[in-house]
Amino acid sequence: MTAAMRAPEPRSAADERVLGWLGHFETALNARDAAAAAALFAEDCYWRDLVAFTWNIKTLEGRDAIRAMLDAQLDAVRPRHWELAEAATEADGVTEAWIGFETEHIRGRGHLRLKDDAAWTLLTTACELKGHEERSGSRREKGVEHGVQQGRRSWLDRRRDDEAELGIERQPYCLVIGGGQGGIALGARLKRLGVPTIIIDKHERPGDHWRKRYKSLHLHDPVWYDHLPYLPFPDHWPVFAAKDKIGDWLEIYTKVMELNYWTGTECRSARYDDNAKHWTVEVVRDGEAGTLHPKQLVLATGMSAIPNMPDYPGMDRFAGESHHSSRHEGGERYRGKRAVVIGSNNSAHDICADLWEHGADVTMVQRTSTHVARSETLMELSLGGLYSEEAVASGITTDRADMIFASIPYRIMPEFQKPVYAAMKERDADFYERLRAAGFALDFGDDDSGLFMKYLRRGSGYYIDVGASELIADGRIKLKRGRVEEITATGVKLADGTELPADVIVYATGYGSMNGWAAKLISQEVADKVGRCWGLGSATTKDPGPWEGELRNMWKPTRQEALWFHGGNLHQSRHYSLYLALQLKARMEGIPTPVYGLGEVHHPV
Amino acid sequence: MTAAMRAPEPRSAADERVLGWLGHFETALNARDAAAAAALFAEDCYWRDLVAFTWNIKTLEGRDAIRAMLDAQLDAVRPRHWELAEAATEADGVTEAWIGFETEHIRGRGHLRLKDDAAWTLLTTACELKGHEERSGSRREKGVEHGVQQGRRSWLDRRRDDEAELGIERQPYCLVIGGGQGGIALGARLKRLGVPTIIIDKHERPGDHWRKRYKSLHLHDPVWYDHLPYLPFPDHWPVFAAKDKIGDWLEIYTKVMELNYWTGTECRSARYDDNAKHWTVEVVRDGEAGTLHPKQLVLATGMSAIPNMPDYPGMDRFAGESHHSSRHEGGERYRGKRAVVIGSNNSAHDICADLWEHGADVTMVQRTSTHVARSETLMELSLGGLYSEEAVASGITTDRADMIFASIPYRIMPEFQKPVYAAMKERDADFYERLRAAGFALDFGDDDSGLFMKYLRRGSGYYIDVGASELIADGRIKLKRGRVEEITATGVKLADGTELPADVIVYATGYGSMNGWAAKLISQEVADKVGRCWGLGSATTKDPGPWEGELRNMWKPTRQEALWFHGGNLHQSRHYSLYLALQLKARMEGIPTPVYGLGEVHHPV
Repeated sequence: MTAAMRAPEPRSAADERVLGWLGHFETALNARDAAAAAALFAEDCYWRDLVAFTWNIKTLEGRDAIRAMLDAQLDAVRPRHWELAEAATEADGVTEAWIGFETEHIRGRGHLRLKDDAAWTLLTTACELKGHEERSGSRREKGVEHGVQQGRRSWLDRRRDDEAELGIERQPYCLVIGGGQGGIALGARLKRLGVPTIIIDKHERPGDHWRKRYKSLHLHDPVWYDHLPYLPFPDHWPVFAAKDKIGDWLEIYTKVMELNYWTGTECRSARYDDNAKHWTVEVVRDGEAGTLHPKQLVLATGMSAIPNMPDYPGMDRFAGESHHSSRHEGGERYRGKRAVVIGSNNSAHDICADLWEHGADVTMVQRTSTHVARSETLMELSLGGLYSEEAVASGITTDRADMIFASIPYRIMPEFQKPVYAAMKERDADFYERLRAAGFALDFGDDDSGLFMKYLRRGSGYYIDVGASELIADGRIKLKRGRVEEITATGVKLADGTELPADVIVYATGYGSMNGWAAKLISQEVADKVGRCWGLGSATTKDPGPWEGELRNMWKPTRQEALWFHGGNLHQSRHYSLYLALQLKARMEGIPTPVYGLGEVHHPV
Repeated sequence: MTAAMRAPEPRSAADERVLGWLGHFETALNARDAAAAAALFAEDCYWRDLVAFTWNIKTLEGRDAIRAMLDAQLDAVRPRHWELAEAATEADGVTEAWIGFETEHIRGRGHLRLKDDAAWTLLTTACELKGHEERSGSRREKGVEHGVQQGRRSWLDRRRDDEAELGIERQPYCLVIGGGQGGIALGARLKRLGVPTIIIDKHERPGDHWRKRYKSLHLHDPVWYDHLPYLPFPDHWPVFAAKDKIGDWLEIYTKVMELNYWTGTECRSARYDDNAKHWTVEVVRDGEAGTLHPKQLVLATGMSAIPNMPDYPGMDRFAGESHHSSRHEGGERYRGKRAVVIGSNNSAHDICADLWEHGADVTMVQRTSTHVARSETLMELSLGGLYSEEAVASGITTDRADMIFASIPYRIMPEFQKPVYAAMKERDADFYERLRAAGFALDFGDDDSGLFMKYLRRGSGYYIDVGASELIADGRIKLKRGRVEEITATGVKLADGTELPADVIVYATGYGSMNGWAAKLISQEVADKVGRCWGLGSATTKDPGPWEGELRNMWKPTRQEALWFHGGNLHQSRHYSLYLALQLKARMEGIPTPVYGLGEVHHPV
């Protein structure tokens, strides 16, 4: 066994335990004995695989599921060279270890948790495709051909050639629709992997997604959580960056990474040709129509791209100004005006605060309860262990934090989260009491598992407090709870008969599913074939079952050949873009990619 | 002693030796006993100080010099808290250690080499000013004020305000003339230190210094040597980047670091007001005249900024095209033309190769011998130990490499360099033989210490071969050796009577001293008061004595109050910008900066 030879000396008891387990595991896998391999897991066990074994993003729960996966995949995957990557640790009866391994086509790494001598959780992830490694570090390009050649093209010539040709004379292998953080991070990974890619985006400049939002917007996640791949923010970057600063960074990033990013470009339609095995995508670039034929199509249009407008009676007869939160550009114009904001999640709070800062008279209409977590508390209790200056100082780089995060199966993640939010309730008891006293309806999720589970399950239903809650608590932002009955010519009428006179109404009513883009750009038929995006199937509010165990359709093969969905927050865009990029690269290179466990579609859209 | 408490356990003999020395050293310094401290050095000894003790860049050679410096500085500097920063090492009778220390106003680090129990070399460097640390890492700004305030200005508002006000309504503390790599690196450090600074540059865009040079130009130094502060190149960056790529990076860098960089701006004149203690600088920005009153003026105009045009008889009657190498934009226009390039250093070689690549008939005129080092050999034998992928893999980051490099006193640096070039001669014997056979006059420096010493002593006299030498060896680039007698209407006439017919003549005849800028922008009087820039005083060709031991006038106080010179290659711009920035910040904050050993001026210009 390789692991034994490469383990650091001297070995601890934890190392011995892990090496022993890896030895047995390797023996079973070499013998193609799925049953024996599965038997090395505890009865309560999880194997989360990111592309390495399943060419999918998949969590196998229980020995039977593990055995079935191995039976299906082992002959093709041919895993080997299991090793302990660094000294194992032990605490509270759980032994943890970072491991390395290879398969036929992949170099991978992972994480193992043993309870006694049986595996409780195993994470396996693909790092790179053998023979198709990124040209970085010792593999970086030389940049100049030493020796002199007549007719040589300079870097600038070649860059300009590529921009002029790709999508015009030469078809991209991959087309990414949507050039926000998701499309950009994916584009960077594909660039480094040598996958010819075009990213199209309707805005004038990369970063405009951020720039065009309301003026006071800052990232709600701290800097350590927000790095893009390859080019981390410099270490003076503020904890919470302003929207324009992030916008500028994204624009700069596309230049540094030399992405083929088509601004001012909209996709009008896309259809897949099952025979030709490519897409026909009609685009309009700077007003001019054109057609692209990529082999792979990625919708990176974002979770927040299709505004969810409510359908209240009378919306058309309102005499003032009204718009969806996504169109809200800032409070400057509303000084002295009466504003009603319908909704009580992140955008609603930010917009209420922004309007108040600019001297508007603001009322928030809360229709259902909201989870509120104070930013500082969230940082300290939830993210701080993995994403903070202290974490970095203790060796938990962003890359490592991503892997630790990924190592926790979604099924048991609520159990990891609940104590955090229990502590939050206690710590911020006064704060919550004041909010309640102001009439604000609070929740901590259906099962008290808090913010991150809400994000994964439904992508909504919370506010990370950066100040607006105090304005609500002390009445500077007025609060009304209730159902909206209708919109009148002069304002908002609630079911209890309250009338809220308004000069402006902001509908902070959320966004439609990413899948809506498949319906809009491709067809309802394809959208239905693919089914719902996002959500775990937790059978909690807005996340209907059955249990899926992973986010539906995200970063992995869908029921529509050559159609992919990419998105999420900066953390997800950074980390999961790797697995999506490797799947695309493997297909481009003709590497066999036998997908295990393609999701069933329970929720056509 | 603090060192004893913080040393790693268990201690090696090397650790014990260093800790023992540091203990004695600290005791002597605490007692203000300069003689006792000096006695801890070997007879043959060097103390190189970068700002920490001398508020200067200074190497003290021998015990007497060390004692004199300590006598002068100890009362003000008040050093303390000497500690071993990591485990010491021992090889060939020399014990090496990284150390930390503090002074009254500075947190510093350094490097110590002991021979037996006496110090052979000591490096002390300033890292940061106590109470004025950069706001990075755990000190980074929060970015958003949590809590809501009416009338709050966004990041974008504040950035725009700053750009609109600095230099117009508010005077910068520091004005940097020249926005190449040097001005940019310094500007970034000053930004992080909160020193209001404007960088002015005549070009349209940051990076144009690189973009506007000849098409085939690449960096001659490898990527690991070229990082700017704070924002390293991503790890796919090519070993030798093309000029346009570096130009783009510099432009991007000014944006990321939010520098106040005035493009299209020229300095017309500058004079210092001894009473008001500020400069009056006349500038023209986008065609409009204005006046700035900075407290400090930095000339970062580059070593290669004032073209050195020769004065050959008949230059004015040449019927073809002629220009200095700095104006050479590329060989495209010279296909089929006869080109004569006068000079045989880096630019001459690059331009000859570029012309040949574009189909010109090229002759190089070599007037004096040249040092040629093959790029790959240089990488492996000279730079590789400190600046390479292997170095990074073995823990020698760029920061650490800079410190190791800085730890070698210039007096003994030739002894470190000679074996490298002896090995080079042997390894590339065939190559050199072929060059000699083609008539090329070679040297390895007056004392065979090679390229880097030539760079430090005179900043010229060498070519890092990336291909042109082969063209010379095989005659594709023709070579003529000799003195230029005159320029005729049709070409170049040499002293031996040879006539070289030419359609174009390129004068690759080097650049004037940086000091020329002081004469041009300020006055000849100030230029003479300051004296020569660059060079060590080695009494070798083009570097007249007496021995200075450091580069004259670079990055340190000059004989003109509030006038500073900054420049050099990317490595020097990166590393020495730190010390210059700290000196400027200390003055801005009113920290006492007693300068020890301000250079004598032996060479007015």
